[in-house]
Amino acid sequence: MGKTVLTSGAFDLLHYGHIRLLEEAKKIGGPDSRLVVIVARDETIKNLKGKPPVIPEDQRRAVLEALKVVDEALLGYEDINMSKVINLIKPDIIAVGYDQQNIENMAKQTINTHNLKIKIHRLGRFGKSDLNSSSKIKRKIVEDWQ
Amino acid sequence: MGKTVLTSGAFDLLHYGHIRLLEEAKKIGGPDSRLVVIVARDETIKNLKGKPPVIPEDQRRAVLEALKVVDEALLGYEDINMSKVINLIKPDIIAVGYDQQNIENMAKQTINTHNLKIKIHRLGRFGKSDLNSSSKIKRKIVEDWQ
Repeated sequence: MGKTVLTSGAFDLLHYGHIRLLEEAKKIGGPDSRLVVIVARDETIKNLKGKPPVIPEDQRRAVLEALKVVDEALLGYEDINMSKVINLIKPDIIAVGYDQQNIENMAKQTINTHNLKIKIHRLGRFGKSDLNSSSKIKRKIVEDWQ
Repeated sequence: MGKTVLTSGAFDLLHYGHIRLLEEAKKIGGPDSRLVVIVARDETIKNLKGKPPVIPEDQRRAVLEALKVVDEALLGYEDINMSKVINLIKPDIIAVGYDQQNIENMAKQTINTHNLKIKIHRLGRFGKSDLNSSSKIKRKIVEDWQ
């Protein structure tokens, strides 16, 4: 059986940079890997960024699961309970984004506390494009409108 | 061999409404159907709507092809040449959106002129959600920013 790779994010406005990251995440699991994505809850995003996402959580999750590269997309816990997530998904690898230092720290803590054999892989930052982040896309929309 | 369904659109900010429409389009082709999507060129959108899309054509195409429901995504011709598209894809069914009257007219004209056996299917309008159109998403982003 292939390896299970776990990754997570808000995926507010799905863009090509997300897909490239997800493809990289799936690839590190090797042949027949399974990619499980935890989609951040609206409440979690509101707490972290001070405002809710544009697209509600159920739709963000459904769009993720509609991607060829994604085997399963699940909504997270509002308090980002890493221990519960790991226990549920049982990943071989956790893939974290360049800007997910807090997720990486929480994963490391859980792995160390429970002495788990899970590798952490840091994903690259993709693209020179101006449109490789949801915030940049939002900024462009606002600028176009002005 | 399954039926080939052809559909088209701008797909500027991919959202759940798009996915539901694409799923409906694929379903009308029956079992083993093949869904081919023509993605509107930046220049075509600029000519039709007066301004270019937020996301460039290559990225819009790549995101479409990353969807499970899409078998092939191709960039269109800048002048929306329906006759060339039909000749290339050889669809059994052309699925048009509720707001694609001009595409429907062009398809009908080509079908009649060349006496082709292609059915036209009009897709439903999905969702009571406020976020089932790219323009509504853009409006929400601008309002959030203000």
